[in-house]
Amino acid sequence: GIAPAVHAQAAVRWRLASSFPKSLDTIYGGAEVFSKAVKDMSGGKFEISVHAAGELMPAFGVVDGVQQGSIEACHTVPYYFYGKDPAFAIGSAIPFGFNARQMNAWMMHGNGRKLMNEFYANYGMLSFNGGNTGTQMGGWFRKEIKGVADIKGLKMRLGGGLVGDVMTKMGAVPQSIPGGEVYQALEKGTLDAAEWVGPYDDQKLGFNKVAPFYYYPGWWEGGPEVDFFINQKAFDALSPENKAIVNAASAYAAQDMLAKYDALNPIALKQLAAAKTKVLAFPKSVMDAAFKASQEVYETNSEKSQAWKKIIADMRNFQRDQVLWFRFAEQTYDSFMATVKL
Amino acid sequence: GIAPAVHAQAAVRWRLASSFPKSLDTIYGGAEVFSKAVKDMSGGKFEISVHAAGELMPAFGVVDGVQQGSIEACHTVPYYFYGKDPAFAIGSAIPFGFNARQMNAWMMHGNGRKLMNEFYANYGMLSFNGGNTGTQMGGWFRKEIKGVADIKGLKMRLGGGLVGDVMTKMGAVPQSIPGGEVYQALEKGTLDAAEWVGPYDDQKLGFNKVAPFYYYPGWWEGGPEVDFFINQKAFDALSPENKAIVNAASAYAAQDMLAKYDALNPIALKQLAAAKTKVLAFPKSVMDAAFKASQEVYETNSEKSQAWKKIIADMRNFQRDQVLWFRFAEQTYDSFMATVKL
Repeated sequence: GIAPAVHAQAAVRWRLASSFPKSLDTIYGGAEVFSKAVKDMSGGKFEISVHAAGELMPAFGVVDGVQQGSIEACHTVPYYFYGKDPAFAIGSAIPFGFNARQMNAWMMHGNGRKLMNEFYANYGMLSFNGGNTGTQMGGWFRKEIKGVADIKGLKMRLGGGLVGDVMTKMGAVPQSIPGGEVYQALEKGTLDAAEWVGPYDDQKLGFNKVAPFYYYPGWWEGGPEVDFFINQKAFDALSPENKAIVNAASAYAAQDMLAKYDALNPIALKQLAAAKTKVLAFPKSVMDAAFKASQEVYETNSEKSQAWKKIIADMRNFQRDQVLWFRFAEQTYDSFMATVKL
Repeated sequence: GIAPAVHAQAAVRWRLASSFPKSLDTIYGGAEVFSKAVKDMSGGKFEISVHAAGELMPAFGVVDGVQQGSIEACHTVPYYFYGKDPAFAIGSAIPFGFNARQMNAWMMHGNGRKLMNEFYANYGMLSFNGGNTGTQMGGWFRKEIKGVADIKGLKMRLGGGLVGDVMTKMGAVPQSIPGGEVYQALEKGTLDAAEWVGPYDDQKLGFNKVAPFYYYPGWWEGGPEVDFFINQKAFDALSPENKAIVNAASAYAAQDMLAKYDALNPIALKQLAAAKTKVLAFPKSVMDAAFKASQEVYETNSEKSQAWKKIIADMRNFQRDQVLWFRFAEQTYDSFMATVKL
């Protein structure tokens, strides 16, 4: 039946700062998908304006912005804030961590979201899933990588501090270069390698022309979660309806981003291969060395950060079960499908 | 800023029939997660009561119920309705089809949801993602399956008409037996094998005691989507806000179900293995024969159903790209993780 109800509701206006430029339409677009869902579900009574990196604050200033309350929300990759505390990385991706689906399982039905939000409370904020890229590619190299010796002295641009620590242990020399200067540095040879995301995003940058060896997998980003960080006081001030709307809108935006990457990446990969990109797997010796170096960095981080030490223990425990389970039905199925002619 | 607004809103009450019993808490629970999200987001102005299989109508009567408008919504597995038209199966799972993530990609950023909804319009309804189990297990067998010869004459309980057609081609004799009688039939030997879902759901039924060979993968369910079907007229009568709420609530419920299965399945698998279950992969010869038989059934279905013919072409096209892409970063990463000691 239809029972009319009359009531008053306050309009809410938030500002969200993205860590991404508009040109990365898939990852930047996640915040727009989120904002539109919130607006549609609330009938326009809750609106979130989305601002590209640099518009309100620098890409890496968004956590400070949320903490200080100058913005209510941001859309970012938690591992960008590894320098504040290594534990940020566990909320996004650590080398040899979860794939995208396993991350969701830990976050939603393990202790993941609970533990990460306890940690984020130190910054006066809480987190919601804001997307995932799936396993990333390992990046673009000017020369072939035949073994660990080829990593030594390699000047490489990397996306985060944690993989930087691991690569340093392996003998590489991580470089901090603004995104816009990477192409020229690769062309000149002042940079030997650079990692970005995956075929769809990478293709736009044209790196294949100056660094034709395209390696996989990005073992430091098996399933990086992108997050919405929200100022705790701003969230607490929301009505129960709007809190529920934020939660479901984030789930929708997260699912949409991964689906969009999966739909677009193969098309770009085929075009890159047709444009003479050499798509190669990292040699097993490099993977093994990276795994070993990662464990050493984990140990160091456990000495540096109580939060890392606590959260990594729970994460690893959950991951052991996930890897066990995926070895059976899921991977056997995918492996068989990789062999048949469709 | 805060701007008070006064307006009237109608209360909406829907009934949703599930095809599942409450005992299957993960898959049945998906409708409860959906219903709670809708209620919370609407502040109780949109409520959906959830009814277990048999409460309002039989498990397999729910599509008729939605079509006739006696209920507004149902939560079911589309392939249950393969007998009405084979195309229903493509909206859920076909043998050697998508995994869960690829299905989302096709549905959200390929033509999947659009094509399936054009087809479902024949039944006066539209679909929303209502969950996924991930790749299922292949079921419980009283005897070891060493090759295709062991499938011949096998009396097996199967979950859908499409896999029944494929298994028949392979020489099996699909059995239609009520769920509650499967255990006894396996014990007596009037049934040789039965498939259900995966470790978490299967464990409750105790099949390991009477059919100890537990095979993987369930090649007929690489990533079966569970759906919410909604009566088109009921949906059209919703406010724009409530339409958006249904959409996001379904995404949240879908993500939650897969995460819950992934969190629970490994624990059950370890317990089943400890209880003397023999967990085995189907021999490659059986997988190859199943793939071949499946292609033949696809051909027959294309002759029977225009909808199947149209949708399978688009689906296969999209799947070729997905399988190509997953072979690179994603599978290489998962395969390496399966070899390391965490």
